[in-house]
Amino acid sequence: MFPFKNNIILTRTANRTLYLQLSDQLIRYIKSGKLPPATKLPGSRKLAEDLMIHRKTVIAAYDELISQGWIETIPAKGTFVTSTLPIINPKDFDKKTSIRNTKNKSSFSYDIRPHLKRELNKNTSKKNVRIEDGVPDHRLAPIDEIAKVYRNITKKHHHRQLLTYGSVYGNYDLRMALVTYLNQTRGLRITIDQILITRGSQMGIYLASQLLLRNRKRIVVGSTNYMTADNTFTDAGGIIEQVPVDQNGINTIVLEELCKIKEINAVYVTSHHHHPTTVTLSAKRRMHLLQLAKKYNFAVIEDDYDYDFHYNNSPILPLASNDINGNVIYIGGFTKIIAPAMRIGYLIGPKDFVDEAADLRRIIDRQGDQLLEQTLAQMIKTGDVQRHCNKVLKIYKQRRDLFCALMKNKLGDYFDFEIPKGGMAVWVKLKKPYDWDTISKIALEQSLEITPNWKRYDNDNSGHNGIRIGFATMNEEEIQNVIEKLVEVFYSIDKNS
Amino acid sequence: MFPFKNNIILTRTANRTLYLQLSDQLIRYIKSGKLPPATKLPGSRKLAEDLMIHRKTVIAAYDELISQGWIETIPAKGTFVTSTLPIINPKDFDKKTSIRNTKNKSSFSYDIRPHLKRELNKNTSKKNVRIEDGVPDHRLAPIDEIAKVYRNITKKHHHRQLLTYGSVYGNYDLRMALVTYLNQTRGLRITIDQILITRGSQMGIYLASQLLLRNRKRIVVGSTNYMTADNTFTDAGGIIEQVPVDQNGINTIVLEELCKIKEINAVYVTSHHHHPTTVTLSAKRRMHLLQLAKKYNFAVIEDDYDYDFHYNNSPILPLASNDINGNVIYIGGFTKIIAPAMRIGYLIGPKDFVDEAADLRRIIDRQGDQLLEQTLAQMIKTGDVQRHCNKVLKIYKQRRDLFCALMKNKLGDYFDFEIPKGGMAVWVKLKKPYDWDTISKIALEQSLEITPNWKRYDNDNSGHNGIRIGFATMNEEEIQNVIEKLVEVFYSIDKNS
Repeated sequence: MFPFKNNIILTRTANRTLYLQLSDQLIRYIKSGKLPPATKLPGSRKLAEDLMIHRKTVIAAYDELISQGWIETIPAKGTFVTSTLPIINPKDFDKKTSIRNTKNKSSFSYDIRPHLKRELNKNTSKKNVRIEDGVPDHRLAPIDEIAKVYRNITKKHHHRQLLTYGSVYGNYDLRMALVTYLNQTRGLRITIDQILITRGSQMGIYLASQLLLRNRKRIVVGSTNYMTADNTFTDAGGIIEQVPVDQNGINTIVLEELCKIKEINAVYVTSHHHHPTTVTLSAKRRMHLLQLAKKYNFAVIEDDYDYDFHYNNSPILPLASNDINGNVIYIGGFTKIIAPAMRIGYLIGPKDFVDEAADLRRIIDRQGDQLLEQTLAQMIKTGDVQRHCNKVLKIYKQRRDLFCALMKNKLGDYFDFEIPKGGMAVWVKLKKPYDWDTISKIALEQSLEITPNWKRYDNDNSGHNGIRIGFATMNEEEIQNVIEKLVEVFYSIDKNS
Repeated sequence: MFPFKNNIILTRTANRTLYLQLSDQLIRYIKSGKLPPATKLPGSRKLAEDLMIHRKTVIAAYDELISQGWIETIPAKGTFVTSTLPIINPKDFDKKTSIRNTKNKSSFSYDIRPHLKRELNKNTSKKNVRIEDGVPDHRLAPIDEIAKVYRNITKKHHHRQLLTYGSVYGNYDLRMALVTYLNQTRGLRITIDQILITRGSQMGIYLASQLLLRNRKRIVVGSTNYMTADNTFTDAGGIIEQVPVDQNGINTIVLEELCKIKEINAVYVTSHHHHPTTVTLSAKRRMHLLQLAKKYNFAVIEDDYDYDFHYNNSPILPLASNDINGNVIYIGGFTKIIAPAMRIGYLIGPKDFVDEAADLRRIIDRQGDQLLEQTLAQMIKTGDVQRHCNKVLKIYKQRRDLFCALMKNKLGDYFDFEIPKGGMAVWVKLKKPYDWDTISKIALEQSLEITPNWKRYDNDNSGHNGIRIGFATMNEEEIQNVIEKLVEVFYSIDKNS
C-alpha cells in the first residue's frame, strides 16, 4: 500500500487550510500515477490517525476530491481513485513536430498601422522622477470603498445574475444612476435610451469614430489636439482637418469657412479644457458651434474628460446640455475621478446613434463588467463618488497653486504659462532660445524624465514649443523636488551657453 | 442663527454612520443656500449637546466637511462655511435654448451596419423557460472566491499601482501565469511576448479580424459557422468563403482547392468543438491545415472557446501547440470557465502580430481591468481556477448525460443528434416534416422559448434544420421540465396534423 504517512506533509502554519493541503497532495500523487486509477484509499479514521489530524479534515479532503471527480466512494466497499479520470494528459496530434519550437514571427500578412506606433512610451527606470501629462494620483483612489461595495454586492443573492450575459448597453442600475447624475450635475436632459456604458472615454471616441469616419469622412479638430484622438480618427479611416485654437477654444469662424468649402462629418472638441492647451471653449463659440452643426449637419464629439475638475469658477455646462437638434455625442468617464484602472465611461447621444454604437460594441467585447458597474452605480447613489470627487478636487487645487507659484517664482524666466482653471496639467511654453530636445536630455541626467514622446503635443508641427506638465500626481514634496530639478537643468544649460 | 437642533435629524438605526448623516445634512443646507458662505457654525461641544450626540461625532463630521472643502476653520475665530464653495451650480451658456428638450434623433449621417443587427434578441418574459445555445451556469460561478481574492489584493499596499495606467498587453502577473498554465495544459511553447490579455475571446476575434481582413481580404469558415464571428469578419471588411463541415470538422481538401484559385488571408476554426455542430477537427486535418497555412501563407484563427470542457476522452492539443511556422493566432478566455461577466481572455500569436494587436487595442479601450486580472492570476497560481473547472466539468457531464438520455428516450422520433464529447450544447437536427418555425411558435404557448433568432445557425441558408440546445445552464429538474415541455409541443403538433 502507498505510504501515506511518509509522503504527505501538512503544515499548520501554512496559508492554505489543512484539508486543501491534503487534497492537493493526493491529487499530485494521482496525477503522477503513484496512486493509479482504482487504488483503494485508507478510511478517514485510519488516515487521520496516521497523519495526526482530525478525522473531519480527512473527510473534507475526500469530499473535495469526490466533487472534483478524482476519487469515488463505492457503498460498503470504500473509497477509490476514480477509474476514469476527468483530466488526463491531452493527446498530441503530430508527434514529429511537437518537440520543435514555436516560431515567433508571423508567416502571414496583415494590416500595419504606422500611425498607432507613435504612442509607445520608452521603458524607463523606476528611479527617475517622471513628468506626466495630466493624470490623477492613484494613491488617492477610494480603493477600500470600491472593494467593500464590490464585496457586498457579490454577497447578495439576486446580484448573481450580474455574472451572466447582460445588456450590451451596460448595467441597468448604472445607466439609471448616470441619467439622474448627469442630468442634475451637467444640465443634460437625457433618458435611459440615450446612454451606452463604455470602457472609459477612449472606447466612446473609438465607437464614434468607427461610425462617423469610415471611407475618408472629414473630422475637424483643434490645432493642436489630443494625439490619441487624432490617431483614433485616422485609424477609423477619417481625414483630419485642423482649425486654430486660441484663448477661447477652437476658432468657430474658421470652422464656418471650412464648412462652406468642404463636407464636414464631425467636429471633435474637448470643450471644458481643450487638450492639450487647457483653454475653455467660450459660451459664444459654443452657441456658434451648435448653430453650425445644425446648419451643416455634422456631429459634435464632445469629449468632456475632466468636467469634474474645475477650481476657480463654476464650469460652463457642456454643449450636450443644449443639444436641441440632435448633433452632440457626449463622452465622459470615471477613469479620472476614481482611478485610471476603473475603466468605466459613457457615450451619450441621439437614440438611433447609441443603438448603432451598441451593435458595434457587441462585436468588440460583448459587454462591460456588470459587477464593477453595479459597484459604481451604488457609489453614485450613496454620494460616495461625489464626496470623493470633492476631496481630491481640494487636494488638486492646492497642488496646482503650489506648482504654479513655484514655476512662476523660480522658472518664470524660462516658461510662459497661464494658471489653468481646472484639469490636472499646466500648458507650459518654453521661451526661446531653449528647446525641449536639449532640456529633456539634460533633465534625464538629473533623473528627471520629461515624457519621452513630448513631441506628441506638436502633432501638426506648428512649432508652438509647449508641453503639458501634470501636477495632480505629485504631493507637495514631489512638486518641490521636480521644480528643484528643473532649476538645476536650466542652471546647467545657462552655465554652458 | 440657523436652528440646527430642529433641522438636523439623526437616526441611530440607519445604515449610514451618524457623522456622515450629519455631514450629509449640513451639505444639503449649504447647497440650498440655507447656510450661506461665511456662516459661522456652532462649536462642536454646543452642537453635540443640541443634537444629543457625542462630541467626537460632530468633530468627525466637521473634519469630513473640511476635507471636502465645504467649511473651514479659522484659528481663534471658529468654523465657517467656506466663502468660495468648491461646487456651485454650473453656468448655462445659452438661456434661450436650455429649457427645450434634447432631440432624440440624430441630425448627422453615420455608417449603418445592417449585418450587426441580426444578433439582437427579443425581449422576453421572465416567466418563460428559455433554451440557451450553450452558455455556462452562472449559479456555479466562484463569486465568493473572486470577491475574497479581489479584496485581499486591494488591501496590499504595493497593489495600489494596479490602479494607475498599466500595460496595454495586460497585467504582468496574469500574462506570466497564463504562459505557464497554457504551456502546461495545452502543449503551447510560448513566451510572454506572444500574449495579449483581452476582454474575453470576442475581443481577440475582433482584433485579429481588423488586422487581417480590411480591404476585402478573404477568410475561410466552415459551413455553417458561429454567427458572431462571421459578423465580426464582415464588419472588418473581409469576404467570407465557406467550406463544408463534416464529422471531422472543416474539410481541408476543399480548402486546398480554394487556396489554388483564390488568395486566402485567414482561416477561422473552432477546432476543439466546431461551432455550432460540436464536432472535433481530426488530427489528420489539423496537420493538413497547418501544411496549407505554411504553403499558402495564411493565418489560422483558432478560437478555442471551450477547450476546458471535454467529458469522455482527453482533448486533442490545439493547432497552436504545433505552430512551428508562425501561422496560428490562438484565442481563448475565461468567460466560459468562470462566468460570462468575467471578461478576461487572451490572444496568442507571433510576437510581431501581438504587438500590432496591442497597438490597435490601445485606441479601443486603452487597457484591461488590472485588479481583476491580478485576481485571476492569483486564482490560477493557487489552483483555484483548475479546481473550479474540475468541479463544474463533473456537473456539466451529468447534465449532458441526463439531457441526452431523455432526448433519446422521449424525443428520439423527432430529433437526430450525437452526444457531444464536450462543450455545453448538443447539436440537434429536427427530422422532417417538422420545422423550427412551427415548433418555436407552439413552444412559446407552453412558455418555452427557443432562442428567437434560431435561424442564426443557418446563416448560409443551407437548410440543415439544426440548432444548438445548451444543457449546461439547467439542473436536473430544469432539464426534465424542458424535455416535458418539448414532449408537449410535439404531442400537440402530432395531434393536430
